[in-house]
Amino acid sequence: MIEIFDFRKGIDNGILQKLHNRSKLENKEIAKKVEEIISNVRERKDKALFEYTYMFDGINLDKSTVKVTKEEIKNAYKEVEGEFLKAIDKAIKNITEFHEKQKQSTWMDFKEGIIYGQIIRPLSQVGIYVPGGTAAYPSSVLMNGIPAKVAGVEKIVMVSPTGKKGINPYVLVAADKIGIEDIYKVGGAQAVAALAFGTESIPKVDKIVGPGNIFVALAKRALYGHVDIDMVAGPSEVLVIADETANPKYVAADLLSQAEHDVMASSILVTTSLEVAQQVKIEIERQMEYLERKEIIEKSLKNFGAIIVVNNLKEGIGIANDIAPEHLELNISNAFEIIGEVKNAGAVFVGEYSPEPLGDYLAGPNHVLPTSGTARFFSPLSVTDFIKKMNILYYSKDSLEEVKKDVITFANSEGLTAHANSIKVRF
Amino acid sequence: MIEIFDFRKGIDNGILQKLHNRSKLENKEIAKKVEEIISNVRERKDKALFEYTYMFDGINLDKSTVKVTKEEIKNAYKEVEGEFLKAIDKAIKNITEFHEKQKQSTWMDFKEGIIYGQIIRPLSQVGIYVPGGTAAYPSSVLMNGIPAKVAGVEKIVMVSPTGKKGINPYVLVAADKIGIEDIYKVGGAQAVAALAFGTESIPKVDKIVGPGNIFVALAKRALYGHVDIDMVAGPSEVLVIADETANPKYVAADLLSQAEHDVMASSILVTTSLEVAQQVKIEIERQMEYLERKEIIEKSLKNFGAIIVVNNLKEGIGIANDIAPEHLELNISNAFEIIGEVKNAGAVFVGEYSPEPLGDYLAGPNHVLPTSGTARFFSPLSVTDFIKKMNILYYSKDSLEEVKKDVITFANSEGLTAHANSIKVRF
Repeated sequence: MIEIFDFRKGIDNGILQKLHNRSKLENKEIAKKVEEIISNVRERKDKALFEYTYMFDGINLDKSTVKVTKEEIKNAYKEVEGEFLKAIDKAIKNITEFHEKQKQSTWMDFKEGIIYGQIIRPLSQVGIYVPGGTAAYPSSVLMNGIPAKVAGVEKIVMVSPTGKKGINPYVLVAADKIGIEDIYKVGGAQAVAALAFGTESIPKVDKIVGPGNIFVALAKRALYGHVDIDMVAGPSEVLVIADETANPKYVAADLLSQAEHDVMASSILVTTSLEVAQQVKIEIERQMEYLERKEIIEKSLKNFGAIIVVNNLKEGIGIANDIAPEHLELNISNAFEIIGEVKNAGAVFVGEYSPEPLGDYLAGPNHVLPTSGTARFFSPLSVTDFIKKMNILYYSKDSLEEVKKDVITFANSEGLTAHANSIKVRF
Repeated sequence: MIEIFDFRKGIDNGILQKLHNRSKLENKEIAKKVEEIISNVRERKDKALFEYTYMFDGINLDKSTVKVTKEEIKNAYKEVEGEFLKAIDKAIKNITEFHEKQKQSTWMDFKEGIIYGQIIRPLSQVGIYVPGGTAAYPSSVLMNGIPAKVAGVEKIVMVSPTGKKGINPYVLVAADKIGIEDIYKVGGAQAVAALAFGTESIPKVDKIVGPGNIFVALAKRALYGHVDIDMVAGPSEVLVIADETANPKYVAADLLSQAEHDVMASSILVTTSLEVAQQVKIEIERQMEYLERKEIIEKSLKNFGAIIVVNNLKEGIGIANDIAPEHLELNISNAFEIIGEVKNAGAVFVGEYSPEPLGDYLAGPNHVLPTSGTARFFSPLSVTDFIKKMNILYYSKDSLEEVKKDVITFANSEGLTAHANSIKVRF
């Protein structure tokens, strides 16, 4: 079960270290296998892709069956509830609205004889990976697809392993609702490689986004540079900061919701109140009993769960900044006033009625967030991830003449005489 | 020598393929060595760092001598010319001005019962790699350091291998001029690993930027995820589009200036005029004679140089978009009018008085640009590279109640009952 660590008597570096070192994708055996899959798909294209699909997913595909048909999409609508359709429409509206605010514009400065600026353009083609099997997340389709749409990406290609059951209907409906038309029934490292290099049936893309198992994650990382990728994602985590005003029932529920994701997920409470700590522990044990994924939750809490008691809020925020959690809940009074002290987190949930699952689905902000401490330097997925910039520069003859000497001095300081020459020949 | 390919008679895919496949950092032997260096430095820290520095750079460092002293900086100023100091001041002014325009602000939307937005924060600590040896580029210090400064990064750590001569004085002056105080005399994969994990003498950073040889490039790529990196950089390239109005002398000089960087560099002319093509070829041969780095230039032009003649401008831009060059020069009349058709390029230089070397030093736009076709998805280095975002979300009790049903529906569609529970317990 989840343990209480009383940091008021001294900081326990052991537990902090354990949280820091959770999963670094360092599995050499799988990495080697992934490399083999990649070079095979790169060379033998569709042939290798279909062989691996048969090997791993147990289905026989060819060029004529690999793509999801309009018929299949129509059927998917029949399998989902009317309530889901309503919920997804609301989610699309909110997510679109939030991401519209991230759009950036081309800017230019016109001076006398000089023009410069930065041109913003959408990426042309993007691939979205959507996991199959038990973990079929329609919300993931929205969170990856909508920012790409808002950015103006021309072509979005989705891949998802189907197994024998076909792609999850909720996922298909989500994709159709946001206008994704090219959906392919492939997954794993082979699908990632197909997107990176293109095959006879899968279009080559410029960037691959979306979550996946370790094969997918390692393939994405290995192909970074051939294509762009969203981020190197690890297992999910939440850190709740709670003071004595927090409701232990709510806090417990939020820790549990994170823990159900994965036995590697991490749920951490940092509180200034020993009483809250103890109550949350009791509540966790109580609520866990009626949850479906109890087994995963138990393991996850035991592995990477922790309740940490601190002397004051400042200490608590220090721990949060050190861990740099994917999700940070501020379950304290006057939470807004301390946000300036939060340095590292993927997303901050403020107040006791903003539980993390609200952000997973339909509030609007993206749920694709940096994990495993990478919030120190990575950002949530956003429209910015689906655009690129080009610098632009114009000098008139007079303007160039004015800086002629300086450019030549610089070029010579670097020993690059052909650089100096390119200025000299013009005068 | 550079060859003319007449695409008016049909496109030569061979040459396009050759340009596409230039260098992909696929050197397994070096990659393995780099891995070994990384894990050694990660474990044995300073000890390993100093051992490798002795082995590769031939100098014996310890904790007391690894850092550049104020004295050494003072001495560097004595070795550089007054003209260089003037040129660098101008460059700093222009580069700062350009990058100030890239700053983004935290935004928030306050609605009834709902607040959301995105918080922008600078990265805390950033490492800049500056190559040593013959290729000592003070401009590189400015182009990597100034955006970090403008973003508000608290601590910038610079590393550069010194060999026995000490760090190049131009580089030291450039670093000092922009206020970089922590400079360490180490380089190679060992320096990159030291920055990623921290050692007794080198501070751990959140992101590593800057160019380097293949050891440095592979170390950066291997550590991506532990830290962020700027990009996976390949050798440099320029593509000049010229019409019949272009001055062959200028075009030739610009192609030569690119070629002098590296035998792997690529200089491509795409022109609608066979006459210009022929004149440029002649000019290249003429101008090359008096250039210091003639030997490198000859190899580079032979390896990856090309003069391509096309039927019309549209075809030419198509080739440019396909190659996605780091630098694109539009040496044509009314160049501004076709910029909307340019899809893929790191930086666009407009008109005949905007040669690429102008952008290398002091016009303002960043010279750290995506290479080897990665302009399809990567962007020039910018202030954005030194900030990160955090999503923020607040819902009041009433607002949460309003979406309660939808969140629960979504959670259930994904089989995540603990997610649904975290909403339910609140009502």
